[in-house]
Amino acid sequence: MELFSNINIHSSIAVYVQIENQVQFAIAAGKLNAGDRLPTVQKLAKDIGVNPNTVAKAYRDLEVMGYLYTRRGMGVFIEKNIEIKCRESVRRQIIERMHEVVAEAKAAGISKTEIKALADKCLGSKTQPYQDAPESLLALAKLSKRGK
Amino acid sequence: MELFSNINIHSSIAVYVQIENQVQFAIAAGKLNAGDRLPTVQKLAKDIGVNPNTVAKAYRDLEVMGYLYTRRGMGVFIEKNIEIKCRESVRRQIIERMHEVVAEAKAAGISKTEIKALADKCLGSKTQPYQDAPESLLALAKLSKRGK
Repeated sequence: MELFSNINIHSSIAVYVQIENQVQFAIAAGKLNAGDRLPTVQKLAKDIGVNPNTVAKAYRDLEVMGYLYTRRGMGVFIEKNIEIKCRESVRRQIIERMHEVVAEAKAAGISKTEIKALADKCLGSKTQPYQDAPESLLALAKLSKRGK
Repeated sequence: MELFSNINIHSSIAVYVQIENQVQFAIAAGKLNAGDRLPTVQKLAKDIGVNPNTVAKAYRDLEVMGYLYTRRGMGVFIEKNIEIKCRESVRRQIIERMHEVVAEAKAAGISKTEIKALADKCLGSKTQPYQDAPESLLALAKLSKRGK
């Protein structure tokens, strides 16, 4: 499933959290809809290359959150009428994290102008969540001298 | 010490990580300089209201990173000639996190225009790292209808 092609087992974000987030992002973005079936625990675990317990934990958490349901012998499906709740919940998480990183940048003495420029550069980057940031972006961490 | 007044023991970010980050941000921003003395483990632990082991871990990590040194009986001090290294390291972390949250927002179907507007609102907020995001910001998670 293309949705899970970005899972990065080398990221500092736990794989089960990545799976939970990717499912929520996809619901929020309208890419996963009520009744859509997710890959089985075994299949997804094999595709990503992780222990099935990791996938099972993510699915269980998403079921507790009310986003998934299991039909024995049939698989795991997206619940009905959860788009708005999911979208608002995801937006809230993202706002909290955006607020935090901006507050950190300010605390680190980065100017507002530069923070805006960084956000713009990030917006221009094609990278997906949990993939490493591209070198062109990380190069901005270097302090001037060599320009650019 | 004012520097540590923002430590939030209710945050999802571990307290020792918050201490490590706040020290690095302060060095990067030029608020802590070579030779400045940090509060003792016991004093800071008491001020924040955490176990001294938590503060000791943060100081030990920062010493391993090369940012602090301990003078027995005198206290813990900021190392010399680490400003540039610290500033670049902090900038790299912040760029990675900014990249991640922007990638998440895009994956969640939030438009570029709205991501920019969110970053702007965050920039306008006075909140410090690890403090809760203000309600006015979180209200943006709600989907229109009531406007604003």
